[in-house]
Amino acid sequence: MSRAGQDRAGLRCGRPWVEGDLVRLCLLLGFIILYMCLGAAVFSVLEREAEMEAHGRWDGRLAQFAEETRVDVCEIRSFLREYEEASFAGVQMEPRRARWDFSGAFYFVATIISTIGFGMTAPSTFAGKVFLLFYGLFGCSATILFFNMFLERVISLMTLMMQWSHRNRQQKKWQGTGVEERGRNEEDGEVEWRPSLYSVALILGATSLVVTCGAASFYSVMEDWGYLESLYFCFVTFSTMGFGDLVSGQKESYAAGWAYHLANSLLLILGVCCTYSVFNVNSVAIKHMVNWILDVAGRLRCPSSLPAEVERTDGLDCCCPPRARGDGEATTRHTPTRWSLNMATFARPSASKDRCQCSSSAVEAVCSSEAVVQARGPETCHVTAAPKCGFHLHPSLPEGIGAIAMLHNCLQETSIKQ
Amino acid sequence: MSRAGQDRAGLRCGRPWVEGDLVRLCLLLGFIILYMCLGAAVFSVLEREAEMEAHGRWDGRLAQFAEETRVDVCEIRSFLREYEEASFAGVQMEPRRARWDFSGAFYFVATIISTIGFGMTAPSTFAGKVFLLFYGLFGCSATILFFNMFLERVISLMTLMMQWSHRNRQQKKWQGTGVEERGRNEEDGEVEWRPSLYSVALILGATSLVVTCGAASFYSVMEDWGYLESLYFCFVTFSTMGFGDLVSGQKESYAAGWAYHLANSLLLILGVCCTYSVFNVNSVAIKHMVNWILDVAGRLRCPSSLPAEVERTDGLDCCCPPRARGDGEATTRHTPTRWSLNMATFARPSASKDRCQCSSSAVEAVCSSEAVVQARGPETCHVTAAPKCGFHLHPSLPEGIGAIAMLHNCLQETSIKQ
Repeated sequence: MSRAGQDRAGLRCGRPWVEGDLVRLCLLLGFIILYMCLGAAVFSVLEREAEMEAHGRWDGRLAQFAEETRVDVCEIRSFLREYEEASFAGVQMEPRRARWDFSGAFYFVATIISTIGFGMTAPSTFAGKVFLLFYGLFGCSATILFFNMFLERVISLMTLMMQWSHRNRQQKKWQGTGVEERGRNEEDGEVEWRPSLYSVALILGATSLVVTCGAASFYSVMEDWGYLESLYFCFVTFSTMGFGDLVSGQKESYAAGWAYHLANSLLLILGVCCTYSVFNVNSVAIKHMVNWILDVAGRLRCPSSLPAEVERTDGLDCCCPPRARGDGEATTRHTPTRWSLNMATFARPSASKDRCQCSSSAVEAVCSSEAVVQARGPETCHVTAAPKCGFHLHPSLPEGIGAIAMLHNCLQETSIKQ
Repeated sequence: MSRAGQDRAGLRCGRPWVEGDLVRLCLLLGFIILYMCLGAAVFSVLEREAEMEAHGRWDGRLAQFAEETRVDVCEIRSFLREYEEASFAGVQMEPRRARWDFSGAFYFVATIISTIGFGMTAPSTFAGKVFLLFYGLFGCSATILFFNMFLERVISLMTLMMQWSHRNRQQKKWQGTGVEERGRNEEDGEVEWRPSLYSVALILGATSLVVTCGAASFYSVMEDWGYLESLYFCFVTFSTMGFGDLVSGQKESYAAGWAYHLANSLLLILGVCCTYSVFNVNSVAIKHMVNWILDVAGRLRCPSSLPAEVERTDGLDCCCPPRARGDGEATTRHTPTRWSLNMATFARPSASKDRCQCSSSAVEAVCSSEAVVQARGPETCHVTAAPKCGFHLHPSLPEGIGAIAMLHNCLQETSIKQ
């Protein structure tokens, strides 16, 4: 079946284009808001007291200064307001490097295009602000592409190494049992071995942790920060939050000079790339979690007639006829290791899907699992009574959910030469 | 051919796994560094003078204040240093809302998980900093997922609408010419119509512009900022830079109270989502540009023997035999509208690719273009002499280049139930 046919098949269940994914999106938004409320409550408890103390301490200090110098408090306040304004233009009491010489501006544009945006430097002129609007638009896009390509390369490298290691283990195993090598992956039609999401997440997480802790030690020494402060700086920067309360490389001079600034830049790039990768891998895990919850909710709605693996899972009604659902044994035997990720729209178009005309993710997953199809025979899951939709869109975007991949799924191939 | 077979075919050209994409990555990095140098030079020219003036003005003001109040400059400096520290804990001369009550903390966590990180609020306690590390890890991942899902929905909606409009136009055209409706998209094997990247980019860009300009007007009124300042704030915030020189919703009280804070939150979410979408669509366009440059470079390297469309394009040598390259006429006729995007790893696995054993993107693109295959006949592009690789990895990740999609390409389906 052609791709167009597959896409059409993906809509035959007849529900509107958004429903399943919109439920997922709303559920996620709900979680995020709940998570924010929780976070706000915790931070409020942790920080409120310190804020009150700081205010009290400052009021005391202001009064003391006014008394010592016999200057009117209003005058001091007005002076401090002017200082506030000056500090946006780079004035600080600690001697600092110039902000808008070439190297300072270079550091600044790095915080633009990476979207870290520390804010210790920000354009103050009209022309600077206008230029920023146009400059950032292209720069941020290019950096997003760079992060994605970096992640792609890292994952490819990890997959390659893990496949190599897996292959070696398999060969040793076969040699050990006296069975001749089967060349399992050499034949068409076999499912290739791929490392699991969780092992990749673990390795990526560990790598990022090493990079972050290493960077924290480095900054701790070079910037005279405590280790925790340094770790906090690394996390806030690498995740591109960039509060700006701590910024590296801002002293007037360093022992190692340019070498330090170079190391600082490289560390920032490496750290941001690693953390971006970790966030993205985590986000896939979160997507699984959301799907799992929808799956459980689906089971609560239609608990009896279907085997657990073939139930509705994502807010879309399943329209496989009973005979497709009947072969419970094969389903139960094969799905536990495969279908949940398929459900997370990771299902791939495959030859066996030609026989499946239903868009419900769970069913699609069961159908697209070649092992299951083998066990069930080719007549499995052929749906003919499904309603037909007018548009040729694939609501669950089965080839991937990433930002750019999804464009690839939805958009026509366009030539830049046109 | 199964997917495993396709992947294997993708490696038959025998070059290492990284080469083509690594060249692309390095080229992009080179561009970014060049772009940063350019930006740094421009910002330095625009802002340096203002910085010097601000420093000069401040030095004058400090001396004047010291003279007026007859206080030692050193004492004032020490006092200002204390003020600097206090300002990190939320002390400001303008009356501001509390930073760490529940609503302030809620605003703060929003800047964490969206990675805006204004920095006007940042945790000052040990416990707050430690909590931030763990809190941000999950929160930022969830938000990335949310942004991706939002983008997915927006693109799906746009595709749906544009397909509907295209369908209507086609029907009118057929009715006009008296030809009966062909049901072009109904038959398997036909290429479905998809909107082009550039039309989607245009619509998304226009939508974002409207949202940003609308938000700027709103903030301009509510915060008493100039329109340009307000526009600058919107761009800096929506792109998640968040310098923190301007922050909305920080006054002690507003006319509309809670309504304003709610509108502020919704605008921030909408703005960030829109801008994220624009950046991602732009990044695909940039990817095209990079590929185009590599294509031109490839032509300069092997200018004579191959027709332009089948030359090496991405640093990988092409290994199609001469007979695959010979049918220049069909290639020339069909590729200009399709292959450049295919080259950008947007090539999809399709039935026609079974006949193509070469991983060079350009050739793969030509082979996977069904129209071309139809014109050439099924024997086209069958490579048998290509060297065989040991690993089952698809170096150009043909199913998409997005962050999450690429995980989908590389990773095994893993159950969360395990």
